[in-house]
Amino acid sequence: MDWFAEHRSTLSKAIDACNHRYAWTAYAESPSSKIHGKEPPIQGKANFERMLNRDFPLTMPGEVGRIGEEVSPYTREPLGISYPRVDVETLYQAMAAGKEQWAETSVNTRFGVCLEILHRCSQQLFENAHATMHTSGQSFIMAFAGSGANALDRGLEALAYAYKAVQDIPPTASWQRRFGSGPEIQLEKEYKLMPVGVAAVICCATFPLWNGYPALMASLATGNPVVMKAHPNATLPVAMLVRTCREVLAEAGFDPNLVTLAADTRSEPVAKTLLEHQDTAIVDFTGSPAFGSWIERHCSQLQVYTETAGCNSVVIESTDNLSAMATAIAQSLCQASAQMCTSVQNIHIPAAGIMAQGRQISFDEVAGAIVEAVNQLLEKPEQAAFLCGALVNDDIPDTISRLRSEGNKAGRILRDSAPYAHPQFSHARTATPLILEVSQQQKSLYSQELFGPISFIIKGQDSDDCLMAASSDAADYGAITSHVYSTDEAFILRAQQSFNRSGASLACNLINMPINFAAAYSDFHVTGLNPAGNACLTDLAFVCRRFRVVQNKVMKA
Amino acid sequence: MDWFAEHRSTLSKAIDACNHRYAWTAYAESPSSKIHGKEPPIQGKANFERMLNRDFPLTMPGEVGRIGEEVSPYTREPLGISYPRVDVETLYQAMAAGKEQWAETSVNTRFGVCLEILHRCSQQLFENAHATMHTSGQSFIMAFAGSGANALDRGLEALAYAYKAVQDIPPTASWQRRFGSGPEIQLEKEYKLMPVGVAAVICCATFPLWNGYPALMASLATGNPVVMKAHPNATLPVAMLVRTCREVLAEAGFDPNLVTLAADTRSEPVAKTLLEHQDTAIVDFTGSPAFGSWIERHCSQLQVYTETAGCNSVVIESTDNLSAMATAIAQSLCQASAQMCTSVQNIHIPAAGIMAQGRQISFDEVAGAIVEAVNQLLEKPEQAAFLCGALVNDDIPDTISRLRSEGNKAGRILRDSAPYAHPQFSHARTATPLILEVSQQQKSLYSQELFGPISFIIKGQDSDDCLMAASSDAADYGAITSHVYSTDEAFILRAQQSFNRSGASLACNLINMPINFAAAYSDFHVTGLNPAGNACLTDLAFVCRRFRVVQNKVMKA
Repeated sequence: MDWFAEHRSTLSKAIDACNHRYAWTAYAESPSSKIHGKEPPIQGKANFERMLNRDFPLTMPGEVGRIGEEVSPYTREPLGISYPRVDVETLYQAMAAGKEQWAETSVNTRFGVCLEILHRCSQQLFENAHATMHTSGQSFIMAFAGSGANALDRGLEALAYAYKAVQDIPPTASWQRRFGSGPEIQLEKEYKLMPVGVAAVICCATFPLWNGYPALMASLATGNPVVMKAHPNATLPVAMLVRTCREVLAEAGFDPNLVTLAADTRSEPVAKTLLEHQDTAIVDFTGSPAFGSWIERHCSQLQVYTETAGCNSVVIESTDNLSAMATAIAQSLCQASAQMCTSVQNIHIPAAGIMAQGRQISFDEVAGAIVEAVNQLLEKPEQAAFLCGALVNDDIPDTISRLRSEGNKAGRILRDSAPYAHPQFSHARTATPLILEVSQQQKSLYSQELFGPISFIIKGQDSDDCLMAASSDAADYGAITSHVYSTDEAFILRAQQSFNRSGASLACNLINMPINFAAAYSDFHVTGLNPAGNACLTDLAFVCRRFRVVQNKVMKA
Repeated sequence: MDWFAEHRSTLSKAIDACNHRYAWTAYAESPSSKIHGKEPPIQGKANFERMLNRDFPLTMPGEVGRIGEEVSPYTREPLGISYPRVDVETLYQAMAAGKEQWAETSVNTRFGVCLEILHRCSQQLFENAHATMHTSGQSFIMAFAGSGANALDRGLEALAYAYKAVQDIPPTASWQRRFGSGPEIQLEKEYKLMPVGVAAVICCATFPLWNGYPALMASLATGNPVVMKAHPNATLPVAMLVRTCREVLAEAGFDPNLVTLAADTRSEPVAKTLLEHQDTAIVDFTGSPAFGSWIERHCSQLQVYTETAGCNSVVIESTDNLSAMATAIAQSLCQASAQMCTSVQNIHIPAAGIMAQGRQISFDEVAGAIVEAVNQLLEKPEQAAFLCGALVNDDIPDTISRLRSEGNKAGRILRDSAPYAHPQFSHARTATPLILEVSQQQKSLYSQELFGPISFIIKGQDSDDCLMAASSDAADYGAITSHVYSTDEAFILRAQQSFNRSGASLACNLINMPINFAAAYSDFHVTGLNPAGNACLTDLAFVCRRFRVVQNKVMKA
């Protein structure tokens, strides 16, 4: 059982892809049975269904009962799955037991275990997709790809960077010199990689493993025990991952408690207890800006890696393909009901309109094209279901209702939101995009993330005014993705400079593809330079502090 | 003027040395006129003397007067040099002016400037040595080598790591794929390195530039403006460096205010004002554990890199060369009057003594050998001056007096301390090592750094008891270096494990060399795993968060 040898070429390809940042994936993104065969999709669904309404097959040290409050956004019924509730102190004692063995094993053995974990996860993407659907509300395809294959790629990408970082430290060195007129001194030096402590990974409700895989991989591969803190409504995908980790660790002769699950409930959250534990050294957080910035401010004793949220924007200056542009933007407003960290919220259009295919069209025409593109995308319920999925919780319909009831105070409704009828799940919690027209003076409405399918078309004086507003919002309120559409190269250059100076990345003229897509091995996801997060997934900085070096030097006689 | 091309081979050699960690130096460590010629030493001294009793030729934006309170530990007279006192807000405004130009220039141009700065510093090591002597109290040779050539090597080492880190990001990539049945998508991606903000470098009194060079290089090379906060009694070496940086920046067409000096006084310290400024993003700190840990706890908004102090120890289990071992330890007690971060303080010896060259010798004999070795090293005043230099401030003689006056409460005096007569400077503030014998029950005496030539010989039950005490102290109170002497390979292995688990590095059986020596490109200086500091000088983790990546992706038509 040499997992490192078995998966070595995958790791090598991932490192090469990171170094050159071309398009590559290690995991099949499509759930098509043409790729996987007929059986796995059926088996995956059956496996998921077998997990419902019972204890999840996972026990934890320090278990003090079972909890579980997941409710499917599709069926609106409890999943009925219970997870261990843990006493944190006992859990941490158990996590400490195996840490020396793990720290002292060879780099290749550790990476072999991590690669095998990813491999086994790739073999259960169908169950993971159903688990993700019925917790986060994602559509099946999004749950299979975005929360499955694409997220696994980010895990492998983190491993690739971790491997580069640890390989940067030679295991030994010979050192010779004289001091003054003294004898030739020869020292044999050994450099040992040391873990820094327990890594707490706080996962979010909508993309439970998007940051979960890379954070887990980065910390575990560099020798640290990991506790996965799942969101109370999206515990199942995390629990499945933890179970897989523990199986692989145990098979390899390591203590399975090197990876544990901390499940909790809304009324008794456990995250702060983990963060305050003296053994915790690292926290990876995905979730609300409020808790994220609390962690950034208050956890100075920890390494803190956050991805939160901002108000992602589009600036429209001109286009040579109005309908393709409108469709690309519309798709972002619909995809996963805009519950993605890369979803667009704020669309800036000059008051006088734009040049489109060589003719001047009005503000209203541009806005209308986007509204129309949304309508077209959602015309067929199958397509709407495929694209939008369901809403993760009731906060989103509540926000939509509030905005609708506020009338013009919340902007002029360009497109109203309504539930759509899901073809499979008649009780699904759904909503189509609400699109509001506002002015820049109504900034308080749109200068934060309004989670879910809510977007603003913001009228600016001219295109540079739109650019200024959007890029300064990125600096002030955060942005994970920003877009510009323009046929004017000079404007594109100004836009790049302006967003880049705001600590934001920019995508230009993206059409004919899901513009929310962030490519592992190619896109540096989150810049760490604006309020939407302090860390990038993934780069050397994401991994190289998760271990330290101690050295032993011995004088040769 | 292509400084990068000019110095490229030096950078390449430094990178190779880091990767393989053999002995190498880019800068001549010896001040011998055989290497440098007759003129430079004379010229250097004259240059230093010309700086005395006048305004240091440096003005700063926001200058609101001149300050300067340096007093030579050798002459006990004020240096009489004045430096700008600055209004921090005005200074920061000026630092912001040139930051975009600096951030947007090419990597090689930036590194060329940094390499040229190091090169020019290497041309003024004689003046730097005199400046360091008369501020920190180091002997001329230590000031030339340890605070000169060796410190410059650490600066170059930081540049080498910074170069590896920035080279890890490709400047561009081409990315192609299809989404479903859509057309082939081609994105051209550009990855831009972005600085994170102003870097504040807080230098200490005894080795002003040991951390100063690497911190400056790591931050400046990655695009950040740097403000150097000198210690009030060791401002001159820092001011000379700042002047050189500004000259080189200006010659290259950059704003000299990218590197500034913040001088202050004991009564009106400026460090916290710098740390609290909203533009500050990084702090590199060398100095007291008290302020260092304050920064670690309170500056959660900053990247914090600290090197403070611990209680460095020696564990003596056995030796096959008693006199060489005693001399090596004695040299550490004397060198720079034990004002180095690598100086040994706590010497653990088993109560029953040790095996030395095949015969059992008593605890008192081992302790006596160390005391005798100190006496021998200091027999001749020239040698004492060469080795010990002077004491940086009056706190050290005060501590020595206090311990001597406490009698047996502070331990049994094995070797008393007294001033030695400096052959050149009759008023030099000097003290030879005070060596106290204590038991492990007197831990409160030795479980912190007592700065200066004060050491403890600590009686343990047996060698494993000594090891346990020393290694757990490293974990609890910090250690930058730890030593063991043993002829028993099994004991050495236990010692390595024990210290390594305490987050400490270990040196074994070092003789015939200055055991305080930390080699750039080879020794990972400070582990970051114990209270003596949270960062290593230097590794990828020291550099790779000092910049971030923003990306621009453009769809190809």
